[in-house]
Amino acid sequence: MKKKYRIKDIAALAGVSAGTVDRVIHNRGDVSADSRQKIEKVLAELDFTYRLGSPAVADSRQFRLLIILPEHSEGDYWESIEKGIESAVNDFGNIKLKMKFLYYNQFDLYSCRSTFNKALSLKADMVLIGPSFYDETVLFASQLFMRNIPYVFVDTFVNNTQPLAFFGPHSFQTGVVQARLLTTVLEPGKDIAFFHSKRTGDETSVQSLARSYGFMSYLKDHFPQINVFSAQFDDSDRKLSTGLLDQFFREHTSIGGAAVFNTRAYVISEYLKQHHLQHIKLVGYGTDKRNIDGLKDGYISFIISERPEHQGYRAIKSILEYLLYNKTGQVENYTPIDILIKETADFYAV
Amino acid sequence: MKKKYRIKDIAALAGVSAGTVDRVIHNRGDVSADSRQKIEKVLAELDFTYRLGSPAVADSRQFRLLIILPEHSEGDYWESIEKGIESAVNDFGNIKLKMKFLYYNQFDLYSCRSTFNKALSLKADMVLIGPSFYDETVLFASQLFMRNIPYVFVDTFVNNTQPLAFFGPHSFQTGVVQARLLTTVLEPGKDIAFFHSKRTGDETSVQSLARSYGFMSYLKDHFPQINVFSAQFDDSDRKLSTGLLDQFFREHTSIGGAAVFNTRAYVISEYLKQHHLQHIKLVGYGTDKRNIDGLKDGYISFIISERPEHQGYRAIKSILEYLLYNKTGQVENYTPIDILIKETADFYAV
Repeated sequence: MKKKYRIKDIAALAGVSAGTVDRVIHNRGDVSADSRQKIEKVLAELDFTYRLGSPAVADSRQFRLLIILPEHSEGDYWESIEKGIESAVNDFGNIKLKMKFLYYNQFDLYSCRSTFNKALSLKADMVLIGPSFYDETVLFASQLFMRNIPYVFVDTFVNNTQPLAFFGPHSFQTGVVQARLLTTVLEPGKDIAFFHSKRTGDETSVQSLARSYGFMSYLKDHFPQINVFSAQFDDSDRKLSTGLLDQFFREHTSIGGAAVFNTRAYVISEYLKQHHLQHIKLVGYGTDKRNIDGLKDGYISFIISERPEHQGYRAIKSILEYLLYNKTGQVENYTPIDILIKETADFYAV
Repeated sequence: MKKKYRIKDIAALAGVSAGTVDRVIHNRGDVSADSRQKIEKVLAELDFTYRLGSPAVADSRQFRLLIILPEHSEGDYWESIEKGIESAVNDFGNIKLKMKFLYYNQFDLYSCRSTFNKALSLKADMVLIGPSFYDETVLFASQLFMRNIPYVFVDTFVNNTQPLAFFGPHSFQTGVVQARLLTTVLEPGKDIAFFHSKRTGDETSVQSLARSYGFMSYLKDHFPQINVFSAQFDDSDRKLSTGLLDQFFREHTSIGGAAVFNTRAYVISEYLKQHHLQHIKLVGYGTDKRNIDGLKDGYISFIISERPEHQGYRAIKSILEYLLYNKTGQVENYTPIDILIKETADFYAV
């Protein structure tokens, strides 16, 4: 086990005062370039890593963290991200953290806009964002930038922003994986339906868009003969949704596979189950209980999962490392793309 | 964030002395049933969880931990388990831990036997075992039991033992998953080859045996018409191995799929690549670099991975919780069964 160095050990090795080491570590006050260099050299040589929550780093400052996520219900994707957040906060205990959660409706542009506006009226040292809408997020990020408030993204990287860090899947690649999996089980000669949720004020989320690019790109490269038809469903209005799906399947009898780009594949799997459409293979995202039910019923062939808890956990860890030690790491951090089948679903929860 | 309670807070709430609380928490010395009950009630009410490595739990005792694993090379399955061990030791820093690693050849019964004998000559407070051989492990476990030395298994649960905990995959189910994946890509009318490594002194490992039961059980239930032929390879003697494989494929021309039950699928994928046998679909275990190469080359269709780092990490965490607080949790802890394809391999390393 590594020996633990205290601030006074570092000071002795660098030939400076303990106060100077403390200032460098916490990025507070002025330190001469010479002293800074000496200290950094010692730190690098010792492979000195501060342990979050260890006695050496107990900190009297209070930090205000604002967390903005889509509204969610029990057991869904965003709840898992929130669990990861809580678990990290619990693990790295010795820090005074005041957390404020704000939620928006991810299918409603106007809800997102007003939540971001509310966020700007609050005081924050750091913001964690689970984004959905491109324009709104870019605008919000630029306002945070103007106020010198650093922010971290989970789930989706939004271009034209400068987050401190991002933790989430490589969206384009998840679409590639989805197409690869779907074509593995698609019967020859069949076509594909490409389902998207009805949303208010915007066509589709940044995440779904990137996934659909990946999806189409794989098909174009490997199965150019497969036709892809776009279709819509509405999670908030099942009756309307059923009508839309009835009409779609009446008009497109060649469909043998279906892809959903958000976490709502269960809307389709429940429809397929109700209508006994076992010949249509479905691939979706996220371990929402209803998706897992679809997987176990055989109406979903594969579920792609992107370790939402892990995303939330690592995001908080990066935020605390920055707040406490001004430490920054890699900006784009891609999480694993996990593939679930009926036979592995019960073992997935870690 | 939860308020943190110190020993003296607990003592005040329970109406006992701080020394009594300390004795209960560390399971040291005599405490009256009445005091114990009071303290445990307070702890339960506060949902008091000690944080490993937090100041409240810094401990002056020194613990000797013996770790017995199969020999391994860079980037293989057991190295990942060892990485998880190191990472946990690093995370839970404030503990005096003296670790001793012993290794045995997992393909040689006699090497395992002599390593276990050596282990019995050393002093240990706790033993972590990565088992391979059934009889030897049961015997070793019973000797540890006689000496009151608790042990934890990673990778494989060995029946007829009483470990403090086990962290690893559900081996039978991984075999089911392997058969499910292989039959997804197997061409109709083709048969399956079932490869096992040549070993010294024993037919096959506990783990491989359980996997092969799961594998056969799935085939029997879903594809009883598929013939399965058993074949052998030798990782330590490639020339011999090539001879064995040449003969096997000459004699069995109906083979369209292959399963390897240990982490050496690359021996087969490298053979298939060398002989341009692209029509044979292969499913194996473990993210050894050579397996990932096989996946990317297209000679391995799926790799099943069981989060070895996670196994090592959780095993150490459970050991430290036991040594420090006498805390025990669930005995059988099954890790996720991850499925890797060419398109997800690069995103898997967390």
